[in-house]
Amino acid sequence: MRVLRVRYKGAAFYAALTDNTVRCLNPQLGLQDPIPLEEITVLPVVAPSKVVCVGLNYRAHAAELGMPVPDEPAYFLKPPSAIIGSGQAILLPETSARVDYEAELAIVIGRESRRLHRDDVREHIFGFTCANDVTARDLQKKDMMFGRCKGFDTFLPIGPWIETDVPDPDNLTIRLIKNGQVMQEGSTADMLFSPFDLVADLSHIMTLLPGDVVLTGTPPGVGPIQPGDEVRVEVENMGLLINPVRDSLGGEDTPPLPVQ
Amino acid sequence: MRVLRVRYKGAAFYAALTDNTVRCLNPQLGLQDPIPLEEITVLPVVAPSKVVCVGLNYRAHAAELGMPVPDEPAYFLKPPSAIIGSGQAILLPETSARVDYEAELAIVIGRESRRLHRDDVREHIFGFTCANDVTARDLQKKDMMFGRCKGFDTFLPIGPWIETDVPDPDNLTIRLIKNGQVMQEGSTADMLFSPFDLVADLSHIMTLLPGDVVLTGTPPGVGPIQPGDEVRVEVENMGLLINPVRDSLGGEDTPPLPVQ
Repeated sequence: MRVLRVRYKGAAFYAALTDNTVRCLNPQLGLQDPIPLEEITVLPVVAPSKVVCVGLNYRAHAAELGMPVPDEPAYFLKPPSAIIGSGQAILLPETSARVDYEAELAIVIGRESRRLHRDDVREHIFGFTCANDVTARDLQKKDMMFGRCKGFDTFLPIGPWIETDVPDPDNLTIRLIKNGQVMQEGSTADMLFSPFDLVADLSHIMTLLPGDVVLTGTPPGVGPIQPGDEVRVEVENMGLLINPVRDSLGGEDTPPLPVQ
Repeated sequence: MRVLRVRYKGAAFYAALTDNTVRCLNPQLGLQDPIPLEEITVLPVVAPSKVVCVGLNYRAHAAELGMPVPDEPAYFLKPPSAIIGSGQAILLPETSARVDYEAELAIVIGRESRRLHRDDVREHIFGFTCANDVTARDLQKKDMMFGRCKGFDTFLPIGPWIETDVPDPDNLTIRLIKNGQVMQEGSTADMLFSPFDLVADLSHIMTLLPGDVVLTGTPPGVGPIQPGDEVRVEVENMGLLINPVRDSLGGEDTPPLPVQ
């Protein structure tokens, strides 16, 4: 099932996507008929209480950054305020001279998760989607802490939909395409820690809540984006997450608030 | 005004504290009469969309960690799932051999804040409270990233109430008392970046939403906690944030979920 988060007649809800219509997944709203796509507004596909990211999860990406391969996952957080949906613009802050794309597979949690056994992880996952862990690389090197370099508004494109049927998340092709050219291409088979391993490990640190997002790291090939670029993240069977890139002062005084 | 977050007859709301009663601050609930304290459950005083922390904000704390003094603030995030209220136990994870207290002044945001001018910060702040940025120091050194070492459930005691009347947040005494002994004592006057400076700076990075929390850094004197300890954070006029410390496996199989 392909799941969108949409707004329709003032209500926000999750909906299943089928061709040119969506079907409301919240039975309490009493919306049983299919709704044509042109009558809805597509919202960013998640509204999480937290977004947890793993630092270096592909051996070759660690190598390109000159970092040692970790023996256990290292995590940081991105603020939910950074989330935008497919089609919304990544806005480059004036305080950074070098902003990079990072294509990632995102896990969306489905059930409250605490101290999970590895075998119980699958039933706690709602689905998977594409994400771009946009990073101000110069500020990352300066700050050492990741709150700023990875926390700017619009620095977390995610979507376009959540795919709930993913038989083998350990064997998915992931690509980043900039202006039509493939810049990153990898397979989740090359992760140091698999998606299920990450969720099990994290659940022993912090309680994961329904809707929470776990980003699983980026394959090699990270590089800069400029105003006017278009970046696409593509994960097998999960559609295309497409975002234009703009200068944050280009034509607008302040960035638009992500539609929540 | 001293503001609590409480549960009463199934509803959760903010309430003003006066002696032995609280007064509901949400007019839509129609609760106009004072409610005796014994009829309410006190909830953790915040339920934020994000918690942003500043890394090294007291010159002497940077020195005790052997870190250079930063020329601009460096930020990281703690997950909202780490929040507990006054009286709830800090649970020490079995994966760390060294967990430290860090007493901090916490700012609670009152209005959506983006690209604020320094002069406009005060009216965007709802109030201030006490916080403890509990940190697994050994994991901090190992991971370099802060998602794990500062992200465990129960690692963010905050409260007991939000004080809205703080004429001069740049001149507050802050203390940490462990088992009756003062371990940290500092003044917000010694911050490298003042509370208002931090909020103004942050608002140029990420949109701050009502209820969001900004931790302002810890004065020197950080040190370890052990099962059986009691730690108190005291900020002038903001009450006492009191938390016992327990082993996470001491008498309970899993930590209790923070009451939200």
